[in-house]
Amino acid sequence: MPEQDTTRSDLPAVGAVIDAIMKAVRTNDVEAFLRHAAPDIVVFDMLAPLEQKGWDAFRRSWAIALGPFEGPIEYEVDHLDISVGGDVAWSRGLVLFGGTTKEGTRVANRLRSTLGFRKIGGQWKVAHHHVSVPFDMSTGQALLQLET
Amino acid sequence: MPEQDTTRSDLPAVGAVIDAIMKAVRTNDVEAFLRHAAPDIVVFDMLAPLEQKGWDAFRRSWAIALGPFEGPIEYEVDHLDISVGGDVAWSRGLVLFGGTTKEGTRVANRLRSTLGFRKIGGQWKVAHHHVSVPFDMSTGQALLQLET
Repeated sequence: MPEQDTTRSDLPAVGAVIDAIMKAVRTNDVEAFLRHAAPDIVVFDMLAPLEQKGWDAFRRSWAIALGPFEGPIEYEVDHLDISVGGDVAWSRGLVLFGGTTKEGTRVANRLRSTLGFRKIGGQWKVAHHHVSVPFDMSTGQALLQLET
Repeated sequence: MPEQDTTRSDLPAVGAVIDAIMKAVRTNDVEAFLRHAAPDIVVFDMLAPLEQKGWDAFRRSWAIALGPFEGPIEYEVDHLDISVGGDVAWSRGLVLFGGTTKEGTRVANRLRSTLGFRKIGGQWKVAHHHVSVPFDMSTGQALLQLET
């Protein structure tokens, strides 16, 4: 019984999707992101609700998250790790997300991002995105600027 | 080129690992959890730091998260979705996590959980766990009791 998957060759293709969605965030282009998203994408976002399903919910949460910013968004991924098997993949990474708000405030948040992929019709699509920050148990406050 | 993965038959095996780690949480048995974890498991936990790597870090965060509780832990998963391809899988679900603290306080938190799996030596292992709650952008407070 072969233990090793034979489709590791899809690693660059999944990496290319990650690059494309990072570029979509940087240019604040939600439709560019959605070209790489499954129609039934389920997002566990930093902000409420607990889960969001589908493109319309995704567009709404994108507008809330990126609405405060003026100009380009910073979005850098560190500690990126991608696992690919057959037509399923996942990745994890630490994200620097920031920019300058319309009020001129500089924002630089450090997030954790996990992506779940499925290969649909020969194309790798993001089917799940979980993005979060930890919180402080004693104060209940979200910790947006933790360094690794 | 086959698009459909041939290892969907591993879905029950991955589901069995999820059942086993849920039982490990309920019985507060970290070693039972670790029997199903890759040695280099990377956890994005609800609490700091941003990421934790390996079994020793896992044991420490487990002690912090479950230490306040007396007796059995509640751990129920809803909206569970599992994707399996070759020797890679991921799952997502909404979790009810709670119990009674040593001070007699009843806790029932609602979390989001994403698991990344790899099949190692013929056994499915948890290689990544991302568990979080959203936060309120206006107050910065973690939202621990959101309903779906």
